[in-house]
Amino acid sequence: MSNPRSVTVFAPATVANVASGFDVLGFALERPGDAVTVRRTEGRGVVVTSISGDDGRLPKDPAKNTAAVAARAFLEAVGSPFGVEIAVEKRMPLASGLGSSAASAVAAVHAVNLLAGGPLAPRELLPFTLLAEKAACGSAHADNAAPSLLGGFVLIRSYEPLDVLRLPVPPGLACAVVHPHTEVKTEDARRILKKEIRLADAIRQWGNLAALVASLYEGDLALLGRSLQDVVAEPVRSLLIPGFAGVKRAALAAGVLGCSISGSGPSVFALCAAADIAERAGAAMVEAFRAAGLGSDLFLSAVNTTGPVVLARED
Amino acid sequence: MSNPRSVTVFAPATVANVASGFDVLGFALERPGDAVTVRRTEGRGVVVTSISGDDGRLPKDPAKNTAAVAARAFLEAVGSPFGVEIAVEKRMPLASGLGSSAASAVAAVHAVNLLAGGPLAPRELLPFTLLAEKAACGSAHADNAAPSLLGGFVLIRSYEPLDVLRLPVPPGLACAVVHPHTEVKTEDARRILKKEIRLADAIRQWGNLAALVASLYEGDLALLGRSLQDVVAEPVRSLLIPGFAGVKRAALAAGVLGCSISGSGPSVFALCAAADIAERAGAAMVEAFRAAGLGSDLFLSAVNTTGPVVLARED
Repeated sequence: MSNPRSVTVFAPATVANVASGFDVLGFALERPGDAVTVRRTEGRGVVVTSISGDDGRLPKDPAKNTAAVAARAFLEAVGSPFGVEIAVEKRMPLASGLGSSAASAVAAVHAVNLLAGGPLAPRELLPFTLLAEKAACGSAHADNAAPSLLGGFVLIRSYEPLDVLRLPVPPGLACAVVHPHTEVKTEDARRILKKEIRLADAIRQWGNLAALVASLYEGDLALLGRSLQDVVAEPVRSLLIPGFAGVKRAALAAGVLGCSISGSGPSVFALCAAADIAERAGAAMVEAFRAAGLGSDLFLSAVNTTGPVVLARED
Repeated sequence: MSNPRSVTVFAPATVANVASGFDVLGFALERPGDAVTVRRTEGRGVVVTSISGDDGRLPKDPAKNTAAVAARAFLEAVGSPFGVEIAVEKRMPLASGLGSSAASAVAAVHAVNLLAGGPLAPRELLPFTLLAEKAACGSAHADNAAPSLLGGFVLIRSYEPLDVLRLPVPPGLACAVVHPHTEVKTEDARRILKKEIRLADAIRQWGNLAALVASLYEGDLALLGRSLQDVVAEPVRSLLIPGFAGVKRAALAAGVLGCSISGSGPSVFALCAAADIAERAGAAMVEAFRAAGLGSDLFLSAVNTTGPVVLARED
């Protein structure tokens, strides 16, 4: 089979932080996500030909568009003789805390790697998506890009050197993510955090994160639930999300394992022991946002264990 | 088999913190440790009849002696009709950062539980040892007592409520512990730490701790080595240990996976992929302490996976 001339790749949205794993943990969703079509061209450049689903808000400038930044960095790294045209189809909300910029970058770089005959392994594509995250958010964080690229739960042990680990996904785990119709900018969500935290809080956080990792290996959902606590970011960032306390209360009352802010918000996620609990909790969370005056979208999803998938190819 | 009239129990020394697991992680050693003999008496009280190996430094007062505090709390909790006489044989250095007070308390409470016919499971004995730790050190920390009681690596997710987890021990793991002839008081080692830490440091710490837990489940010793980093306590507490930098350098040069301070010090531990590496590293660490003007004791040990053991019983 020769290399495709054009390929359309879906890359999943992601939940970063996952309560106790601030800045080091994320997991992939089955939905929503972005679809990116990349087509080989004779010239060497990277051109963004179209973006849909963004209400005209995303830049086509290849130095700023995350799909283009990741694709271009890849093409330069492998010394590609060809260029690409990129069409981005946003199938998820922007600035939602669901890793929208990462999903576009992951879809694009996965696609370009296929066009080039797949010279790099998925894990090796991560640095290109981090350049894209840096262009989009100002910081090269990996907790969305890595799980979108690799699927499942992914831990980022270290950035220098980059050291990422896939963790097991307990069977049956289901997620409800509610995206309220308000925006939180990643920069604002970062700025609101203090540069120093109490040692006692840090100890609680790393005790919970360590137990969360153990719970994934043990498949112990009760322990996972006890470990889904964030004493560092959630107490501060939840102030940026109208109605958060009520939404979390509603989720817990519906029997979820745990509930916290997805990434830097405003989306709120709940992990559940079964899909029907996620469905019930999701409805209750939407209702709680409504009571706070906010419309919202509900996404019900298992944890995605595959990462990006090819939707279409043209040889 | 009737309940014994007297029993002698050995409980192991422990390495708390384990680099990235400050205040939440510890593991048990096969040696050294303490031996405690507990004998049933008609009266209801708890009496400490003898202490050896402590150069007369430990209190016999049952309100202050950790073995007695733990035994008494147990006897009161189960409504015991009998009292006990306790003989403590210290087989390890005091104030060494190897959980000496915890080992005595664990040995005593394990013994008293046997005298009473074993009404409580090992895990249920932990609260009594924490009262003893509080009497000895002023804080009810569990990162020595829990691994001494349960064996292996133990994570303390939370204190309120108490939530402890045994983690897997990768086969072949070996440890060198060097105890230099100087003392660090736990209170001093606590006081020297700042009450606040940089968020960036906290993130590095919990990324490493999360990876350390994963490495134990994966049996991935290279990952364990990369995760044995402490950016919170070691940079400060090592100032209390003459020659620490040279000792750590010597250990790493000998090929250990990682090296850090045991508990609050002054002992220094190194985890190794094999017993012969631990032996070589231990000798180099002793030599490095000598170069800094300090004599030291070397303990070579596998990770103890059993916790306390009965050395003798009398029916």
